[in-house]
Amino acid sequence: MKEIRICIIGGGSRLWAINFMKDLAICKDVKGTVVLHDIDGEAARNNVEVGERMLRINGSEGRFSYVAEDDLEKALTGAELVLIAIEPGRTECRYADLCIPEEYGILQTVGDTTGPGGLIRARRALPLFFDFARAIEKVCPNAWVINYTNPMTLCTAALYRAFPAIKAFGCCHEVFHTEDVLCRLVEKEYGVLPNRRELRIDLTGVNHFTFITGAWWQGHDLMPLVWKKANDPGTFEDHTAIARERIQKEKWFDCDQLVAYRFLKTFGALGAAGDRHLAEFVPWLLVSDEELNRYGVIRTPYSWRLKNAEQKRAKVFTDDELVARPSGEEGVDIMMALLGGQPLKTNMNRPNEGQIAYLPKGRIVESLGYLSQDSVVPIISKDPPLAIQNLVRRISDEQEIALDAIWEKDDEKLFEAFLMDPLMHLPIERARELFSRMCEEGKLVY
Amino acid sequence: MKEIRICIIGGGSRLWAINFMKDLAICKDVKGTVVLHDIDGEAARNNVEVGERMLRINGSEGRFSYVAEDDLEKALTGAELVLIAIEPGRTECRYADLCIPEEYGILQTVGDTTGPGGLIRARRALPLFFDFARAIEKVCPNAWVINYTNPMTLCTAALYRAFPAIKAFGCCHEVFHTEDVLCRLVEKEYGVLPNRRELRIDLTGVNHFTFITGAWWQGHDLMPLVWKKANDPGTFEDHTAIARERIQKEKWFDCDQLVAYRFLKTFGALGAAGDRHLAEFVPWLLVSDEELNRYGVIRTPYSWRLKNAEQKRAKVFTDDELVARPSGEEGVDIMMALLGGQPLKTNMNRPNEGQIAYLPKGRIVESLGYLSQDSVVPIISKDPPLAIQNLVRRISDEQEIALDAIWEKDDEKLFEAFLMDPLMHLPIERARELFSRMCEEGKLVY
Amino acid sequence: MKEIRICIIGGGSRLWAINFMKDLAICKDVKGTVVLHDIDGEAARNNVEVGERMLRINGSEGRFSYVAEDDLEKALTGAELVLIAIEPGRTECRYADLCIPEEYGILQTVGDTTGPGGLIRARRALPLFFDFARAIEKVCPNAWVINYTNPMTLCTAALYRAFPAIKAFGCCHEVFHTEDVLCRLVEKEYGVLPNRRELRIDLTGVNHFTFITGAWWQGHDLMPLVWKKANDPGTFEDHTAIARERIQKEKWFDCDQLVAYRFLKTFGALGAAGDRHLAEFVPWLLVSDEELNRYGVIRTPYSWRLKNAEQKRAKVFTDDELVARPSGEEGVDIMMALLGGQPLKTNMNRPNEGQIAYLPKGRIVESLGYLSQDSVVPIISKDPPLAIQNLVRRISDEQEIALDAIWEKDDEKLFEAFLMDPLMHLPIERARELFSRMCEEGKLVY
Amino acid sequence: MKEIRICIIGGGSRLWAINFMKDLAICKDVKGTVVLHDIDGEAARNNVEVGERMLRINGSEGRFSYVAEDDLEKALTGAELVLIAIEPGRTECRYADLCIPEEYGILQTVGDTTGPGGLIRARRALPLFFDFARAIEKVCPNAWVINYTNPMTLCTAALYRAFPAIKAFGCCHEVFHTEDVLCRLVEKEYGVLPNRRELRIDLTGVNHFTFITGAWWQGHDLMPLVWKKANDPGTFEDHTAIARERIQKEKWFDCDQLVAYRFLKTFGALGAAGDRHLAEFVPWLLVSDEELNRYGVIRTPYSWRLKNAEQKRAKVFTDDELVARPSGEEGVDIMMALLGGQPLKTNMNRPNEGQIAYLPKGRIVESLGYLSQDSVVPIISKDPPLAIQNLVRRISDEQEIALDAIWEKDDEKLFEAFLMDPLMHLPIERARELFSRMCEEGKLVY
Repeated sequence: MKEIRICIIGGGSRLWAINFMKDLAICKDVKGTVVLHDIDGEAARNNVEVGERMLRINGSEGRFSYVAEDDLEKALTGAELVLIAIEPGRTECRYADLCIPEEYGILQTVGDTTGPGGLIRARRALPLFFDFARAIEKVCPNAWVINYTNPMTLCTAALYRAFPAIKAFGCCHEVFHTEDVLCRLVEKEYGVLPNRRELRIDLTGVNHFTFITGAWWQGHDLMPLVWKKANDPGTFEDHTAIARERIQKEKWFDCDQLVAYRFLKTFGALGAAGDRHLAEFVPWLLVSDEELNRYGVIRTPYSWRLKNAEQKRAKVFTDDELVARPSGEEGVDIMMALLGGQPLKTNMNRPNEGQIAYLPKGRIVESLGYLSQDSVVPIISKDPPLAIQNLVRRISDEQEIALDAIWEKDDEKLFEAFLMDPLMHLPIERARELFSRMCEEGKLVY
Repeated sequence: MKEIRICIIGGGSRLWAINFMKDLAICKDVKGTVVLHDIDGEAARNNVEVGERMLRINGSEGRFSYVAEDDLEKALTGAELVLIAIEPGRTECRYADLCIPEEYGILQTVGDTTGPGGLIRARRALPLFFDFARAIEKVCPNAWVINYTNPMTLCTAALYRAFPAIKAFGCCHEVFHTEDVLCRLVEKEYGVLPNRRELRIDLTGVNHFTFITGAWWQGHDLMPLVWKKANDPGTFEDHTAIARERIQKEKWFDCDQLVAYRFLKTFGALGAAGDRHLAEFVPWLLVSDEELNRYGVIRTPYSWRLKNAEQKRAKVFTDDELVARPSGEEGVDIMMALLGGQPLKTNMNRPNEGQIAYLPKGRIVESLGYLSQDSVVPIISKDPPLAIQNLVRRISDEQEIALDAIWEKDDEKLFEAFLMDPLMHLPIERARELFSRMCEEGKLVY
Repeated sequence: MKEIRICIIGGGSRLWAINFMKDLAICKDVKGTVVLHDIDGEAARNNVEVGERMLRINGSEGRFSYVAEDDLEKALTGAELVLIAIEPGRTECRYADLCIPEEYGILQTVGDTTGPGGLIRARRALPLFFDFARAIEKVCPNAWVINYTNPMTLCTAALYRAFPAIKAFGCCHEVFHTEDVLCRLVEKEYGVLPNRRELRIDLTGVNHFTFITGAWWQGHDLMPLVWKKANDPGTFEDHTAIARERIQKEKWFDCDQLVAYRFLKTFGALGAAGDRHLAEFVPWLLVSDEELNRYGVIRTPYSWRLKNAEQKRAKVFTDDELVARPSGEEGVDIMMALLGGQPLKTNMNRPNEGQIAYLPKGRIVESLGYLSQDSVVPIISKDPPLAIQNLVRRISDEQEIALDAIWEKDDEKLFEAFLMDPLMHLPIERARELFSRMCEEGKLVY
Repeated sequence: MKEIRICIIGGGSRLWAINFMKDLAICKDVKGTVVLHDIDGEAARNNVEVGERMLRINGSEGRFSYVAEDDLEKALTGAELVLIAIEPGRTECRYADLCIPEEYGILQTVGDTTGPGGLIRARRALPLFFDFARAIEKVCPNAWVINYTNPMTLCTAALYRAFPAIKAFGCCHEVFHTEDVLCRLVEKEYGVLPNRRELRIDLTGVNHFTFITGAWWQGHDLMPLVWKKANDPGTFEDHTAIARERIQKEKWFDCDQLVAYRFLKTFGALGAAGDRHLAEFVPWLLVSDEELNRYGVIRTPYSWRLKNAEQKRAKVFTDDELVARPSGEEGVDIMMALLGGQPLKTNMNRPNEGQIAYLPKGRIVESLGYLSQDSVVPIISKDPPLAIQNLVRRISDEQEIALDAIWEKDDEKLFEAFLMDPLMHLPIERARELFSRMCEEGKLVY
């Protein structure tokens, strides 16, 4: 049985950390210690209790011990695996990310990755990540570090900027959902619903703006099925009614891949993230709620975010809720692969060593990679059509400028990135005013 | 005395060809034959007469003989220098380029280089350039070919697409005007107004979207002067009143470099084309006439274009108008350098061999180059800040896709370029409708 | 149970084909048909009989049917997997490869990969590979093609030259042996002898001239052990006596990795092929038999090669010899991975898509790769020290020129490659004479 | 009239400095001060006197004042132009460069650029250049710096290593001689002997190992003439008798371009340096004096070098010898171009910004460049055939490793470069012994 010491930064989280602990409770091949660190120490201590109940409920007593630790360096000491899943600032900080741009006519569906919201969120988050990386360099430089926090690309890049030799990568489940969509196409055509891991795909891009350029199952090329769907006029039928129903039922995260297919039909590569994310990277979709709703996509209201955050904070788990079932996340599988268990091929966010030929080396990019004992290697992606390359590069360059700007604490430079963003088509002086307000009101507060 | 045979495609033009003939009449070091070819044979024959009068008036009888030739291949036969300065289609074709996008809220100042207008103009022009290149390959493959036609980048690229070994480059005077602006800064600082050729600049970009990253005169670094101007709050004062006066006086082409300086102030490199051109490459300036006018820039009305074209066509030159004075264009100087006269360093549009490190090889780019006997070599540019690189690359990629699309007669692919354009932020289906109407109404008609 | 149709080109071979059939007889998860094609039809028919006996002896009756087929296209029809392991020409052809250069003072240990011998062997072999690729394109373009023939790089490159969309790669066991050496270091240090697949290595180069830049086992960095060995003065003790004993015992293929370690000590990366191969790529080792023997390496005499070939041809297998034991080759594992079985990470020779950053794209290079269902993806290598990069590039450029030359049937160009070879330091005219004699006497004869 | 302050490091030289002062005495467009700095202060003071006599004799009194200054920093203070032309160490140091390798069978014609001699000379010279660069950074960072010292590439690279923003380049007249050869071909064909500046060439490589890939005069392509010469069997006739005569007459520096043509005939590009230099970069020519002499090339004896150095040191100039005639060097023309006079296109050694596409950026390479007021820009070279690219890259990589090694004072690493050199085909242990002896006996001594 493998043994490991894990540190979870953001260990007080009521969603991500709980799911990870469930997967740990199921996995019988590993034991050790999990240190929960959170800026909200109370929440971390709370989760220690939840973690222990969970082991008990799932018959895994004693395999892991859960510990809360308020001091970052102490929490990291001895860690072999560090997981980072934080919320950079109170939910109220998101008012600046989402609501102020809306006053200027700039709509965002998520606002945590790109667009004005993503950049101002990065401005809050990155200084924390610089600190994480410095602490890791100091006390556990050989640990593997997995980031789950958005903006994924910039947070992961921040780790490398502060500690270039860090063994870090970012994980995101958006691609899994696109794979599930492909699985359902397989089911429709071949009468079998495969597990997404049975698929083989070619994947390229930056986080939340990734593209599939090839897909296979059991030797069958799935792209003809995907193209058939994209070429079916029914696919792009007006989804306004569906969108309205979603709003009524508060199904903020549902989508039908109309945006993903629209990229395929227009530019030749299938979007490989949820439509809510994809829509934020181009200037043709978030032009109005009306237009967005045609694609069946809706925007999550700030008020709901506030309410939801409060509910999560207040959440008390019943025993029944702590019975473990696989979460669908891959954290534990990745850990096992790094510990020398079953190797794994999956999507990952890593510094570009050539896996994405059309982007500069060193940028954080998303492609497939191969994980095995103490090893993560990227797999070379096929180049997508030139238009897609350009759309992705636009984002990657914007991110690079933002990274430099936040590292150098240079808001003049950050404004360059802000203005370059595809959602930005305000007069420059108005963009500047928006930027100043967002910087002021979107500061980090806990 | 050098001797040369020149063919002017678009030889019936009342502006460009007349200016070139004036410069020829002044230059005493060369003699030969000029063949004027024009789709409007009458106009070419008219210019033969003008050309001969001009030689007489300027005391250069006999040095050149002017000939009109309707057949393209015959016109090119024996040519050592081919100049191409055409209008692709009647002025009425510009209705599609300029007025239809306006119905959709897309404003353009010039609409002949980029934006929806530039692309649809390219769709008309490029098949002609494919034909020119094929004819040149057939009858005068060793001739030097200089293109003056817009869209400059795409027309020059079209020549290389159809005849990869062509000895072609594109010339444009926009950079000269920016150099003149720098000269006036020198005058203000040092009390001497230099000739623009006394300056040394670093230049990079694609035609009409070029940037100056360094400038010197007599060993003085001029960038501090340029930055001083950019940092003077007075520079960006509201120019609406000036714009209104320009409209009233029909001063369509005047500008004050506010857009050029805005690029410097925001992104760190000085725009090196007229503001009317620069404004079309980014989504923050042509958001409304009101916003545009603040920069002192106005849009040329379609009605004036029609009127002006008619006047040029009907123009009868007085003897006095044919007295030659240097036109400020460099065509004759370039010709003399290629013939082995005084070498010349100037801006040029050429396939990228590495002079622009941040763009792929083979793309038509604008940088400095060095002309000497039968030789044109590009000079390596300094890289501008990353944001500028990205803005330029966006255009260059759009142009590459458009070139492929028009070469392959593939309007689906051309729509990719259309949608990628920085001026485009319509819903996709509306963009598609606009595209279809422009394709239909913007066809080549003479 | 998976099903497959395999075609073996060189199916009459008494060594490689027999081993592959043994591995097939052991593997219980697959069934199908194996078509043996050989220029020596008799040998192929002979092997059909051997193959069937082997199935019987190993209790695998009926799983595979063996068929001999003299016509190449018929043999390939329907194939899903093509294995190529041929001898290009009679063993007598090797006289030109090995003995003629010796007259000019050029010693070679193997002479089938590089050096004058490797190039002249390529001149015989490549036209066959162009034909194989054309036949594959015609009758089974979707088949996976694995090449085992030397010169590995050039033969695999020849397949891609003739049919660029071929799904081919080259396999070689030399790296396995180096991994075994590392396993023995592990045993010495940790008291456990691991299987080579438990190691993780960083691998880079071209076939037979590969280098290991990192190695790990169970999270232990093995490079300190390797360096310790390289820095131990005992390692490089004179091995002349050992070499003499090897000659006496006809142990032509034995070695002690002194050359491999010498590369590490001098240039910083461990050679990852047998010393007999490594020695041929640089000018400092094959300067004399005396010098070579100091490293414990000996040259295989041409006379022994002749004798050995005859013995193999005449070989009659006893039942006992046909009892299957794993051969140590990976052909069947690779096949199973491509059929959707257990994925595999292994070394492979593939067109460079960026896995070797210091070599041009498209060159056949050796790195790790990842095989899974119908998929082969290269894994990006770490760059070795600059000196190693240069030594490898020298070979890769030589190979590229040789490939062009043989494709274009241009012996003038092939002489360029010949002269560039690191073993060549003759006066040019003498090199030319040697080249002419080798071309003449090294022609393809069966 | 322009004014300038020049510092000559190596200002006591009896050849190069005298020639430069002659060219200064002729050039009537400039005045100023020349500071002569030399480790041999006596020699510098001697040259002050010579310089002043020369001005008088040539009627240029008062235009320049000559000053000797022993302190490096004082000598550089205020300099706008720095010329470096030194001998690194007494001539006796060259015993190690030339005679010791000969004991090991390694012959060198010059031994100051490449090969074991060039590397050990670099080991002596580079620390001086690091110091020069540091002093320049300190007291005259804006000065233009021209290096004339060999090994040219490494000395110029050393300046950039120690002061990356230095405005330095290296000048060498070897290409001029090749241009003169082309001029004589023109004369033979067209009956006119042009000045070499009337030619246009394509030039690529590293210093002393440069190649011409194209040449024109008056629009005539000269390459057919060059190829005709290379294909004429007479060209490569045995020149042993000529070589013997040269030895007898002590005509050490004469050659007939047989080596230059041999590169063309074998690899497709004409060598563009003297045969004595070219021969040192490949392993096929310096195999024996006999072989070398066939090409008409001879080796300069160490004894003659000693004698010649002594004669130069003792030299007293007669008035007649100080009557100025153009030296054929370009130093003064370059100075005038940088001062804003007549621009100049010439060959230069500069950091690679892309002018040599097949070498990494940053390496010191030789190509054409364009000089104008305070500006030096490289001109992009055409790629030579792949074999030439490889031969050049081998040298450039060796130089890069040597630069790193000498900068880091790491003789282990310097031995890597030593072993990689094309002239090196000794057993490694013997190479190591040679290296140690040369390091020991080739130390810097004045």
